Amino acid sequence: MIAEIISIGDELLIGQIVNTNASFIAAELNLAGIIVRRITTIGDTHNEILSALHHASQYANLVIITGGLGPTNDDITKHTLCEYFDSHLVLHQESLDNIRDIFCKRGYELTERNRLQAELPHNCTAISNPLGTAPGMWFEKNAIHYISMPGVPFEMKKMLMDEVLPTFERLGVTKSIIHKTIYTIGIGESALADRIKNWEEQLPTDIKLAYLPEPGIVKLRLSTYNSDAANPKEAIAKEITKLKELIPELIFGYDKDTIQKVVGEILLKLGKSVATAESCTGGYIAHLITSVAGSSAYYKGSVVAYDNAVKVEILGVDEKLIQLHGAVSQEVVSAMAQGVQRILKTDYAIATSGIAGPDGGTPEKPVGTIWIAIASPNKVYAEKFLLGDDRERNIRRASLFALNMLRKELMGR
Amino acid sequence: MIAEIISIGDELLIGQIVNTNASFIAAELNLAGIIVRRITTIGDTHNEILSALHHASQYANLVIITGGLGPTNDDITKHTLCEYFDSHLVLHQESLDNIRDIFCKRGYELTERNRLQAELPHNCTAISNPLGTAPGMWFEKNAIHYISMPGVPFEMKKMLMDEVLPTFERLGVTKSIIHKTIYTIGIGESALADRIKNWEEQLPTDIKLAYLPEPGIVKLRLSTYNSDAANPKEAIAKEITKLKELIPELIFGYDKDTIQKVVGEILLKLGKSVATAESCTGGYIAHLITSVAGSSAYYKGSVVAYDNAVKVEILGVDEKLIQLHGAVSQEVVSAMAQGVQRILKTDYAIATSGIAGPDGGTPEKPVGTIWIAIASPNKVYAEKFLLGDDRERNIRRASLFALNMLRKELMGR
Repeated sequence: MIAEIISIGDELLIGQIVNTNASFIAAELNLAGIIVRRITTIGDTHNEILSALHHASQYANLVIITGGLGPTNDDITKHTLCEYFDSHLVLHQESLDNIRDIFCKRGYELTERNRLQAELPHNCTAISNPLGTAPGMWFEKNAIHYISMPGVPFEMKKMLMDEVLPTFERLGVTKSIIHKTIYTIGIGESALADRIKNWEEQLPTDIKLAYLPEPGIVKLRLSTYNSDAANPKEAIAKEITKLKELIPELIFGYDKDTIQKVVGEILLKLGKSVATAESCTGGYIAHLITSVAGSSAYYKGSVVAYDNAVKVEILGVDEKLIQLHGAVSQEVVSAMAQGVQRILKTDYAIATSGIAGPDGGTPEKPVGTIWIAIASPNKVYAEKFLLGDDRERNIRRASLFALNMLRKELMGR
Repeated sequence: MIAEIISIGDELLIGQIVNTNASFIAAELNLAGIIVRRITTIGDTHNEILSALHHASQYANLVIITGGLGPTNDDITKHTLCEYFDSHLVLHQESLDNIRDIFCKRGYELTERNRLQAELPHNCTAISNPLGTAPGMWFEKNAIHYISMPGVPFEMKKMLMDEVLPTFERLGVTKSIIHKTIYTIGIGESALADRIKNWEEQLPTDIKLAYLPEPGIVKLRLSTYNSDAANPKEAIAKEITKLKELIPELIFGYDKDTIQKVVGEILLKLGKSVATAESCTGGYIAHLITSVAGSSAYYKGSVVAYDNAVKVEILGVDEKLIQLHGAVSQEVVSAMAQGVQRILKTDYAIATSGIAGPDGGTPEKPVGTIWIAIASPNKVYAEKFLLGDDRERNIRRASLFALNMLRKELMGR
């Protein structure tokens, strides 16, 4: 099955809201084995809607439409669909009952505007909307399904999950798309591509590879579409096993993993604790670690030592080290890690000190120079990174690299 | 000028990432007075790209294309554009120099793959990409501008803001759309709408109001489109003056302001310093504050006291207070604020202690119960907030509310 998603709404075209509906629908269709070929976003405009419907019907056999079903005058999707399908509006009693129920529950009086929402094209099947006043509409014409749903995300999501997808399951749409995402860290996209070139070239033709770079991370996604393989999941797993042998130290997780989740799981399993001492990352590592529910089991806390006095007075860094080597140095960052490890009484500790930018660089230590130290029960070591000019990215990348250094230390490599 | 945005990337069609690029571009074009009529999202597929270009060229005179410019084999946008514009690739020396610079800075060796990124269609104008290796391309054909940029958001944003939009400004694209955004905090969307109902009703008809709620914040946007007013900017400013009289305590900034930036500016002006002691917010307040360049002038640091022992041993909170009232209490959060103020020697301090969720709630202190304290030179006070079930939202909202409490304290209300 080939689908197009048509998102209708002026607010999307002026960038007032991000089109999260389309990505939600795309992800769900994809999981259900339906291929989305195009997403079209248009305004609440009669001709644009007709033209998009016409365009989609050239190649798709499923057209999912969201938006433009509200009670106000700017919402014209229903009337335009009525015209496109050569239909006329009739009262749909169940929808009217639902609208009445909703108004009654909210203690509002039913308005004429909302009563009109229960009128639907005579040749569509209504899709009930328990969370809102606009029912959905399901048309079928020339073996193409057209499904219109409200743009309100939670109303649309409930309709899609409770009515639309189950109906397609009953109609026997096959689940034949499989994806597996592999997370790598510590290497750029091109260098990674070079290192796994031979592996990439020997991939079976029905397994597609995509590179998805993010600051600090490169995701690799393996996908099969309608694979002829007896067991495509197993075929993908086999390729991942080969990849793991090739770049064991670069892979930190799969699918819904994050580096902070993976590090947390290892700490939990080992029964070990960690603390952080952050200068240039300014609390972002602490934030990442504590964004994982249950992190209090292994995370004791952080000293964000933005001021040098805090490094000395709280973390116990020798003032002379700072004078001799500067705050951004192997010596100071190592002392910070050992300091927080000692005062917070943890097994491990992470420390960062660097120049996040945009100001503060010198010829010897340009913006983007960042030292990261890991203290473990019996040693401390530090590594220097040369990142870029962008403050936000430097903070994020340094934080991910710091967590990855701890991950490698915990795994004994 | 009428624009179409074409977003290219398989990952968009399977819902793996949300198309934030399109809404960013749409918002910026809109501000520049360029009307976006359609956003088309397609995969990294030769025929789909050609068909989308053809379709857009039927009505638009500006086509903005993002994505598919990476160095790996799945990125085919450049070659497809080359074909569409009947062109051939030539080496672009400036782009090669830029790529070399980037690799040199990062300490990586230049790969052949990345060298190839400097080859561009001979009939395009290169758009420099200081943050990445893929240059942008600007084609002009039959009075239509086609601009291709990378899909990496921060690279695209810099190109759009620093090169593309300034060029259109020089070309004399009229700026007849005016927007002004007002940030409010501490009130929900409906309650705010009720409070400013009379003001909203008296707005001139050519000034449009939009409510844009985010977790913890409600943005109000006033817009004029091709206004007939002699000075639409002034007309908007007049309405904002009236609004400020109505809800002075709820407004914290305008346009590109953030609460952390506003708080930082006040601290700078007053010559005062601040520190934070965070439990449930886990370093997120520190991260927000230090995300502002130059924050080291007023921010000394944070103690993320995730473990109660850290509250006692580092912050000097009396252990009995925790036993008597629990860590999530007015007494403990106040002692945390005063503790960090004392040990980090600052004028002001913020402290948080609460149950971010999803676990850890009790009947008396359900998930979402959060205490926030502000210590100032001569007093400390705390406030309790009852937020929701969602960990991420609770951390974010509590952090914004904490910064807002400090803002109000600094402004003497």
